[in-house]
Amino acid sequence: MKTPVRRALLSVSDKSGIVELAKALAQRGVALLSTGGTFKLLREAGLDATEVSAHTGFPEIMDGRVKTLHPKIHGGLLGRRDIDAAVMQQHGIADIDLLVVNLYPFAATIAKPDCTREDAIENIDIGGPAMLRAAAKNHAWVSVLTDPADYAQVLAEIDAGGVTQATRTRLAVKTYALTARYDAAVSAYLSSLHEDGSREAFAPVFGLQLDKVQDLRYGENPHQRAAFYREREAQPGSIAAARQLQGKELSYNNIADADAALECVKSFTKPACVIVKHANPCGVAVNEEGIRAAYERAFSTDPTSAFGGIIAFNRELDGDTARLIVERQFVEVIIAPRISEAARQAVAAKQNVRLLECGDFPPEPLSSLDYKRVAGGLLVQDNDTRLVRMDELKVVSKRAPSEAEIHDLIFAYKVAKFVKSNAIVYARERMTIGVGAGQMSRVYSAKIAGIKAEDEKLVVAGSVMASDAFFPFRDGIDAAARAGITAVIQPGGSMRDAEVIGAADEAGMAMVFTGIRHFRH
Amino acid sequence: MKTPVRRALLSVSDKSGIVELAKALAQRGVALLSTGGTFKLLREAGLDATEVSAHTGFPEIMDGRVKTLHPKIHGGLLGRRDIDAAVMQQHGIADIDLLVVNLYPFAATIAKPDCTREDAIENIDIGGPAMLRAAAKNHAWVSVLTDPADYAQVLAEIDAGGVTQATRTRLAVKTYALTARYDAAVSAYLSSLHEDGSREAFAPVFGLQLDKVQDLRYGENPHQRAAFYREREAQPGSIAAARQLQGKELSYNNIADADAALECVKSFTKPACVIVKHANPCGVAVNEEGIRAAYERAFSTDPTSAFGGIIAFNRELDGDTARLIVERQFVEVIIAPRISEAARQAVAAKQNVRLLECGDFPPEPLSSLDYKRVAGGLLVQDNDTRLVRMDELKVVSKRAPSEAEIHDLIFAYKVAKFVKSNAIVYARERMTIGVGAGQMSRVYSAKIAGIKAEDEKLVVAGSVMASDAFFPFRDGIDAAARAGITAVIQPGGSMRDAEVIGAADEAGMAMVFTGIRHFRH
Repeated sequence: MKTPVRRALLSVSDKSGIVELAKALAQRGVALLSTGGTFKLLREAGLDATEVSAHTGFPEIMDGRVKTLHPKIHGGLLGRRDIDAAVMQQHGIADIDLLVVNLYPFAATIAKPDCTREDAIENIDIGGPAMLRAAAKNHAWVSVLTDPADYAQVLAEIDAGGVTQATRTRLAVKTYALTARYDAAVSAYLSSLHEDGSREAFAPVFGLQLDKVQDLRYGENPHQRAAFYREREAQPGSIAAARQLQGKELSYNNIADADAALECVKSFTKPACVIVKHANPCGVAVNEEGIRAAYERAFSTDPTSAFGGIIAFNRELDGDTARLIVERQFVEVIIAPRISEAARQAVAAKQNVRLLECGDFPPEPLSSLDYKRVAGGLLVQDNDTRLVRMDELKVVSKRAPSEAEIHDLIFAYKVAKFVKSNAIVYARERMTIGVGAGQMSRVYSAKIAGIKAEDEKLVVAGSVMASDAFFPFRDGIDAAARAGITAVIQPGGSMRDAEVIGAADEAGMAMVFTGIRHFRH
Repeated sequence: MKTPVRRALLSVSDKSGIVELAKALAQRGVALLSTGGTFKLLREAGLDATEVSAHTGFPEIMDGRVKTLHPKIHGGLLGRRDIDAAVMQQHGIADIDLLVVNLYPFAATIAKPDCTREDAIENIDIGGPAMLRAAAKNHAWVSVLTDPADYAQVLAEIDAGGVTQATRTRLAVKTYALTARYDAAVSAYLSSLHEDGSREAFAPVFGLQLDKVQDLRYGENPHQRAAFYREREAQPGSIAAARQLQGKELSYNNIADADAALECVKSFTKPACVIVKHANPCGVAVNEEGIRAAYERAFSTDPTSAFGGIIAFNRELDGDTARLIVERQFVEVIIAPRISEAARQAVAAKQNVRLLECGDFPPEPLSSLDYKRVAGGLLVQDNDTRLVRMDELKVVSKRAPSEAEIHDLIFAYKVAKFVKSNAIVYARERMTIGVGAGQMSRVYSAKIAGIKAEDEKLVVAGSVMASDAFFPFRDGIDAAARAGITAVIQPGGSMRDAEVIGAADEAGMAMVFTGIRHFRH
């Protein structure tokens, strides 16, 4: 059923497009009700609007705290046009068919550095959400506009005979999502405020609202249903902002792995390639020459695991590199900030390959929250955006690392940050030589890194080693020394640091401490 | 500042304690306003309450859609007792100092099997949330009760001179959290409803609201801030429901690992023990005799990793087992459904050990949602609650497994479900012999399981092997055969299944397919 619009109430904080909308409505014979700043604006534009207080016969009181909370307004929004028609007539309640209200974002109020508790509370909108919720409930008849982006569609539908049910429902859904978000922000703010005006890092009530990007065929496993959701704030350069240019539908595991690969490759400023399999980097390389060379070297770390992997770059994907990949290996996903036309054409030959363009990375890592699900609850923490700087390295061994070793150490440490704990990474010339991931004791991660390098016939001698956390015992260092590792980077902080440093010195290894742990589970 | 209560408005869906509250208020000279069912109840109880329509002078219309949306009500809730006093007097608006409103849970309405779209919409409360939000905004003067659990405290404070600011603020926070939750449920329902009345599994707008259990000292790493949140619905037998009986403060990693250990040990019906380190089980055993024997055997899988581990049981922790643990090893957390008094005393000797009692497990695994964070978004999926049943096993090899092998195969498969992918588990007599976790290719997980068993001098010959996903090549089976593995459990489904089964047959191994994959990353 299409519903006509004869009377509209307009009261907005975001005034973009409001005068144009009001004019268009007036031209179509729609009577206009309004309040406050919006009313003034419409009058100045020469429009014939009625102020809400004139409509209700009740003045606006308490500095605007009470103006629309009146039966003539709410009856007009809530009245069922069929069964309530008589009672509406009896009480002189006129239909309001369209409500245009947007709330001043509470988040913006409290983000102001000089916002006091009193300012914040005064900015909690009561009348607006009450009208929004009433109109959205009655979406069988009433349309609710909370977003200027929807004005044009509603106008077009009015011209085509009335607002459609599909649109009214969509707008109602959007409305309740807005009021839910609004009140979650209010609750979080009020609960996290200390007496001195400072705020708790983590509010007593944690709220999250995300929009579905797509249903997924299934989850981590075929018997689990799944969907992918995105935060409201667009984050360019992230998996959530990525656009799929070709290929099969993304799977749950594709998205998770592409995220890991992309976040890892972002750590590097020079051209880099990261290949991820089962949530772990299985090949990473940085190359001044460009991403083609970086890919070739990343691939050579572990060609077996790279099969069916996810490949991420920190530069535009060019045609040559794209061709090399699809000719050489089975790949699930390729993701890069930009995809050249030549690369598109090269990948088009393999129609199943998922090609993703995520947009340029922000110059600084975005600080946001990380979530870890546990049964009945959620662990919430700051994202691990920390990257060790060269000037933070503390040489603890007798021998200081050479400049080449320092570059490799920092490279390996950046990779280790993205390897599941316990993580050990062997690297040489900014290429991974062996990755030891996900072990319950550190010495096994070191063993695996060595075994993998050997199996791929890579030369470990002359490589460096990174560890995501301190070595509890010297055994990991001894094993590395036997394999020919020349330098080690690790946070330090073990009770047995002296013993561990001693092991490095005995072998003539250089060892640096970062003071930064990078557990990732 | 304490605020007096002279007039209260009561309109509740959950009527528990409301008559008692109203009586107590009346005894203290508080004037009562009320509507609908609550009003009737108060009148039947002999209380002198005024109906809202009598107070406003405006009738209740539209089957109750419009009754409290009136300036006399909202002015009474929103009026600032200082600067608005004159305008309130001018318009005959009386202060309302206490609002007692709880909303009929929308979730309960839509959970009814015969709930139609019209029922659901009619049940969206408009007047209630409007009053709640108004009163909560004005918490400088007004108290809002949305939960019978808070009635007693407010009465006690009234008796002590008035409701305190701390309580009014706490109640306001609770109110906005309630309205946020309510509207999130409405939005999710409306958006997920199909034309035919069925609902989408994943709503277009995903909302989550959790309550903080505690701030944590830090997150996964010391430079990350963190907090632990719990779902509103108590889930007995989960980490979120656990009570800490002694020990140091729980860390982020403690909670994550205790969750993994607890969820894994729940898979077993006989007495069982799971030891987790770095998110992976490093020792699991089931023993008919009891959890002491189960612990001893779980520990022997990998004593190195068990050091500093998290230990979970599926039975009450007894004194003997508790003593054995703390005497033998350094342990971070022990968790069990119940902790006996003797166990408490035994662990008390080691004051740092965190001792957690989580309550009895629910008889069926709770179906809930799992979340995986990615940059800018969230993957949402059904929890993996699937456990393979004996009658689902499909023997694909020439030799069928013996009964003992079947028991071990199912045991190993339950463990593999909780090992990070790729996961390989060797087991014998329902004890893990080797755990190969978190590798980017399956054959390395198999290698690691073998190496670990050998290092701990455990006999692999005669063990069974579980794999969380199919074998892409026969190499994993060949390696297992050389190690003396006699039977294999895996989902099946590889392009090379025939080759893989052939490898099992050549070695005289039994092989069963489950058809259920258990990736866990």
